[in-house]
Formats: sequence, structure tokens, C-alpha cells
Amino acid sequence: MSKALFFHAGCPVCVSAEQQFAAALDPARYAVEVVHLGEQKSRIAEAERLGVKSVPALVIDGQPFHINFGAALADLK
Amino acid sequence: MSKALFFHAGCPVCVSAEQQFAAALDPARYAVEVVHLGEQKSRIAEAERLGVKSVPALVIDGQPFHINFGAALADLK
Repeated sequence: MSKALFFHAGCPVCVSAEQQFAAALDPARYAVEVVHLGEQKSRIAEAERLGVKSVPALVIDGQPFHINFGAALADLK
Repeated sequence: MSKALFFHAGCPVCVSAEQQFAAALDPARYAVEVVHLGEQKSRIAEAERLGVKSVPALVIDGQPFHINFGAALADLK
């Protein structure tokens, strides 16, 4: 079981669609943790270390994937 | 079983990472078809109808998700 991290910032347009995307991952292989960076600013540094440049983003097996374009991490600080 | 469509254009940087992403989907729920738009230009119109603006992109349940930024569809025509 790998951990997949889904970072977002709660933008109303994106949440439902992006959570659908995170929910599409294989539950036999991935435990998905959803992190709202607007509410958990302490985790922005973690996202940056994982290579996340913008949200929404999904990190699978240590590889960041930026989905569409929402907000730059700098805008959340 | 839903069909998921993964559109890409064969950029060498992206292929392995993006196929890893498509492969992470739940195989019990999604049959993933990978479409190389550089080789199958006849399917660019289909991608556009689905709302794809750039590649790589993944369409799940009719909803397009643009991953990172690769190439605009217009550049493939």
C-alpha cells in the first residue's frame, strides 16, 4: 500500500472534481490523504519538499502531478 | 466499469510519469485507454469535444483533468 497525497486549497470550483479524481485511484494500492493547504498551512513546506508547485496536486509514489491550475503555493502563505 | 482516456503526445519527459499516473487508477472501476495524439491526429477532435485543452490529460467520467503542462492541442495539428 502506497500513500497518495492530494493537496488542494478548497477552491469551490475544484474540490468536487479533484476529489473525484483522487477517489479514482486503486484503493488496493493507494491510501489517499487529502490535505487542505488553506487550513493546514503547516504542511505547505511538506508539499514543497515533495515538488508541489501549485494546487490541486496529487503526489503518487513520490512523484508530484499538478492538475489543472489553481493557486500558487506562494499565494497561500 | 467506466472508460478513462489518457491523452498524451509522447513527450519523453512525461510518458513514464504520466503512464504511472494512469496506471494508478482503480482497475475494478476504470478501463484506461492511452491515446497518443501525435500518432493519432484523427482523435484530436474527440479530445477537444471532451474538453481537453492540453496534454497530458486524463478524462474520467467525462471530466477532463489537465496534468502539468505539456503541449497545446493546437501545436499537434
